Amino acid sequence: MKKNHVVWHKVNVNRQDRNHLNNHKSGLLWFTGLSASGKSTIAHSVEKQLFKRGFRTYVLDGDNVRHGINSNLGFSREDRKENLRRIAEVSMLFVDAGILVLAAFISPYKADREYIRKQFEGDNFLEIYVKCPVEECEKRDPKGQYKKARAGIIKNYTGVSAPYEEPENPDLILDTEKKPLKESVDAVIDLLAERGYL
Amino acid sequence: MKKNHVVWHKVNVNRQDRNHLNNHKSGLLWFTGLSASGKSTIAHSVEKQLFKRGFRTYVLDGDNVRHGINSNLGFSREDRKENLRRIAEVSMLFVDAGILVLAAFISPYKADREYIRKQFEGDNFLEIYVKCPVEECEKRDPKGQYKKARAGIIKNYTGVSAPYEEPENPDLILDTEKKPLKESVDAVIDLLAERGYL
Repeated sequence: MKKNHVVWHKVNVNRQDRNHLNNHKSGLLWFTGLSASGKSTIAHSVEKQLFKRGFRTYVLDGDNVRHGINSNLGFSREDRKENLRRIAEVSMLFVDAGILVLAAFISPYKADREYIRKQFEGDNFLEIYVKCPVEECEKRDPKGQYKKARAGIIKNYTGVSAPYEEPENPDLILDTEKKPLKESVDAVIDLLAERGYL
Repeated sequence: MKKNHVVWHKVNVNRQDRNHLNNHKSGLLWFTGLSASGKSTIAHSVEKQLFKRGFRTYVLDGDNVRHGINSNLGFSREDRKENLRRIAEVSMLFVDAGILVLAAFISPYKADREYIRKQFEGDNFLEIYVKCPVEECEKRDPKGQYKKARAGIIKNYTGVSAPYEEPENPDLILDTEKKPLKESVDAVIDLLAERGYL
């Protein structure tokens, strides 16, 4: 049994095998930006395009993470850190499984985003800054959270009562105030082509 | 933008789409049993067989979970519960992403395993009991942990100083004391065929 154990572990299916089966690299596309800047919308739209090409992808965002694996975390600095640590770990498992992950999280602190980047090799992590002025995000306010933040009902709200540290050197900047969704989606697809994913 | 948001969310890629693309159902195979009973070995061996058939699979076990997403948890009753809660949540994300997950964890408590089963629909969760007497597991003891547990160096060790509650009605029982690895692997493949995965 011990001998078998060793033998079998040597022939484990690995990321390379899965990338080969899927016919594309796996990696993490990290969308950062204010709430209502359009991160999830763009991520899901890009995924739709990639799915048509037969890509294995997955979107991680507040909808499936904050109510799931991170449901026992709040929004303190410490909890935000643990929130992103777990997201990074989940992303690493997905990338190991051959999936191209599209993660859409406000992730306001540079240090946290740098921590995530460090978990990945150079070409397996792309940072995409979804840029939109807070005034425009407040106009959109799909869940009424900016209103609550301005009224002081929600504390530590990014862009209102908590900082957002802009990326200094992202792989891509998407201006969602001025440009239509389709242009942002195309720009991400172009970036993926440029970096050898397509 | 708001309108786009709504429209795009309606056309999100879902589990059904991914199952169709992959040409197989996604779900969770849960391997439970004592340490050194052979859970991970069987899971990786089954994965290897499924990979040859073009399946999208992933093995979750102590190697990639305890050192990753659950690295900040210990082995108290409370921590074991949180350990399995996070594994269940990660598994749900993978299953939603179209992956057939093979999870190999001691998971000694019935209540915890029932909790995980409840997160999945009936045909998306299969419990596999990897059965091996503790005496045999102690003989194998690949990491020397039983020895440490007997010496009292490791506390709360399942099968030695902490309970293992046997599954009452698992989908499959694998006797790894008497049967060679190949027979266990074949039995899992047969189970998958029976339940409409192949």
